[in-house]
Amino acid sequence: MKKVTIDTSSKAYEVFIEAGVRHSIGKQLETVLTQAPSSIFIMTDSQVAPLYLDDVVASFEEKLPVYKAVIESGEASKSFAVYEQMLTKALEYGLDRKSVVVALGGGVVGDLAGFVAATYMRGIRFVQVPTTLLAHDSSVGGKVAINHPLGKNMVGSFHQPEAVFYDTETLYSLSEREWRSGFAEVMKHGFIRDPEFLEWLQREVKTFDQIPVERLNSLLERSIAVKAQIVSEDEREAGVRAHLNLGHTLGHALETELGYGVMTHGEAVVIGIVFALKLSEELFDIKLNIDHYEKWFNSLGYQTKLPANVTTSKLVSTMTKDKKVEAGAIRMVLLSELGQATTKEVSADLLEKMLDERMEVATNG
Amino acid sequence: MKKVTIDTSSKAYEVFIEAGVRHSIGKQLETVLTQAPSSIFIMTDSQVAPLYLDDVVASFEEKLPVYKAVIESGEASKSFAVYEQMLTKALEYGLDRKSVVVALGGGVVGDLAGFVAATYMRGIRFVQVPTTLLAHDSSVGGKVAINHPLGKNMVGSFHQPEAVFYDTETLYSLSEREWRSGFAEVMKHGFIRDPEFLEWLQREVKTFDQIPVERLNSLLERSIAVKAQIVSEDEREAGVRAHLNLGHTLGHALETELGYGVMTHGEAVVIGIVFALKLSEELFDIKLNIDHYEKWFNSLGYQTKLPANVTTSKLVSTMTKDKKVEAGAIRMVLLSELGQATTKEVSADLLEKMLDERMEVATNG
Ligand SMILES: NC(=O)c1ccc[n+]([C@@H]2O[C@H](COP(=O)([O-])OP(=O)(O)OC[C@H]3O[C@@H](n4cnc5c(N)ncnc54)[C@H](O)[C@@H]3O)[C@@H](O)[C@H]2O)c1
Ligand SMILES: NC(=O)c1ccc[n+]([C@@H]2O[C@H](COP(=O)([O-])OP(=O)(O)OC[C@H]3O[C@@H](n4cnc5c(N)ncnc54)[C@H](O)[C@@H]3O)[C@@H](O)[C@H]2O)c1
Repeated sequence: MKKVTIDTSSKAYEVFIEAGVRHSIGKQLETVLTQAPSSIFIMTDSQVAPLYLDDVVASFEEKLPVYKAVIESGEASKSFAVYEQMLTKALEYGLDRKSVVVALGGGVVGDLAGFVAATYMRGIRFVQVPTTLLAHDSSVGGKVAINHPLGKNMVGSFHQPEAVFYDTETLYSLSEREWRSGFAEVMKHGFIRDPEFLEWLQREVKTFDQIPVERLNSLLERSIAVKAQIVSEDEREAGVRAHLNLGHTLGHALETELGYGVMTHGEAVVIGIVFALKLSEELFDIKLNIDHYEKWFNSLGYQTKLPANVTTSKLVSTMTKDKKVEAGAIRMVLLSELGQATTKEVSADLLEKMLDERMEVATNG
Repeated sequence: MKKVTIDTSSKAYEVFIEAGVRHSIGKQLETVLTQAPSSIFIMTDSQVAPLYLDDVVASFEEKLPVYKAVIESGEASKSFAVYEQMLTKALEYGLDRKSVVVALGGGVVGDLAGFVAATYMRGIRFVQVPTTLLAHDSSVGGKVAINHPLGKNMVGSFHQPEAVFYDTETLYSLSEREWRSGFAEVMKHGFIRDPEFLEWLQREVKTFDQIPVERLNSLLERSIAVKAQIVSEDEREAGVRAHLNLGHTLGHALETELGYGVMTHGEAVVIGIVFALKLSEELFDIKLNIDHYEKWFNSLGYQTKLPANVTTSKLVSTMTKDKKVEAGAIRMVLLSELGQATTKEVSADLLEKMLDERMEVATNG
């Protein structure tokens, strides 16, 4: 079994990566938890439940009470209403301070269940059991949240899990679209911290079809190791943790402008990464061999041009409304060289000029 | 100005106690905050707003944006609905990560505003400006929460304020009923940790009418010092912090059985303290001079007998449903001697027997 340690200022815990680990979560938890759980509350979604819920339930000893809740699959479940419903269930099931929440699913389940655990009786323990590739990012680092109609992830906490159990077997039931969404964050980790890993990825991942499980385990281990490093340096996003937003400022603006769901998060982030690379070349007077990356992105099915139906001025004004923006200037994550992320304030005018001059526009939005 | 330092594992901060300090909160904050606020969001309630809101607003420099929200006075405002409303306002006002929330009011405002601050954008800074005597307890220690229909304070966080500004002048507009409710927690601090303070209280507080402000400042300083000690030893309520629940297990059961609002929290807690003292005498074979305390309580207007319209068996069954109860046994906070709190598991049967044998019942419920 592969292990990555996440060592934050508030807590240290392990990410266990192994094909089939869902079958032994109950057993593994016994060694992970210093205080035995009084009961277990598994939250999952309607798409994951039929596939893996029984396996996880079966992994617990019969004498331990195991409760379940299944939310609708999709981003809309990260709402106040569902949050409140889950807390109601927790109370109805009589969860106490020694109970443990299990988040079985992608980033939606992880963020929601994590926030329930963070706030139920002022915080109880939880573990992440990610089942999407994207969740290799969301399940590590303790950021949990729900959405507000006025903004994504606006209500939440920092609440670190007791452990993350990553069952790579579960990733094979994901659609190609979901692979693509998650893989953007994997590449991002290479760009900001680990050029060798980025090279390895280019060699080993030419298609999402049939990646052998051993390769997948290695990929996750290396990608999570980057996130682990950054989170351990900066748990609360006061500094370097912002580097994880490479490609995200433009990415979020694209998601907002197109309407959520048109492009996946990762697809939007890849366009954002391309732009960040181009901006980095301009501002740091370096060469990043962008064409070569663009080709790789395209071969994996990513779009790297701006959609035709959004104007650059609209994108820029959406970017300035982003929550990471302070006092009008936009702090962008850029690369001073490959593997070296840094942040730099860029004026709205320059952003718009660069978008216009350096980004291509798709012929069909 | 009197100061008490609260030194928790996650943060250290000061409680400033002074008559009239509300007029200079803006100025004081400049020295307290290491990072200047981008904007201020004052939450208060409908009873406090007309009395003190303008003073607090006026204490800030004109160039700093100051936003306000007024909730309905009363426990019902610690709800999901009001919590969500406050977050919506925070977003509409454009609060960012450098904004600071000000909780101006009693425990209801403090708990609600604190939870909003704890979860807005995963946590922003807040300060407590308590205006009730009870809030000398609730504003210190970082416990913030809202209520769920299935239980009080079931949803919340630990989120320490940046500072507490206690303006003793504001306490003079409280009703006698509210003085009595808050004073129960003051006496409690004496019982569990500081017998000298308890003696001082008996000498200095024979009525709630016209306590001179200097005496009130000293009272708060000494009472908060006890809470400070306990919170610094145990921020997250894993051990000694439970001692703060002296009188609360029976107190909560009384509040639940009578219906909230019939008795104030403090009035119920005082009956709980009387019972805890009696139980302590039985179980530790000590003498605590209970008659003498009961007389003092009565002279301050507290009831010390059980209300006639609740049965002891019902009280005990409610106590076993309390959130601090694990696996059926009831862990009671008792005194092994005056000023020495300790916890002890007591069976439901013994509790009922002791309630029947040692507690008097009021002739008129
Ligand atoms: N907390 C963080 O640090 C962080 C970081 C990045 C993203 N996020 C959040 O993560 C969320 C996106 O995560 P996501 O992409 O995993 O979304 P998701 O949880 O919605 O999963 C995507 C889809 O795949 C389905 N699914 C999940 N596992 C499956 C499996 N093994 N087989 C088949 N289908 C499966 C889900 O039902 C869903 O329809 C967003 O809400 C985002 O805000 C959080
Ligand atoms: N967080 C904690 O550690 C903690 C500890 C104890 C209690 N609490 C919580 O505190 C709450 C009770 O606090 P409370 O008793 O202060 O209740 P409260 O905030 O409702 O105040 C009591 C009443 O006094 C009014 N009021 C407040 N200040 C006033 C003033 N200066 N002059 C005139 N009227 C004023 C209020 O409008 C209200 O009607 C409960 O919700 C309880 O759960 C929290």
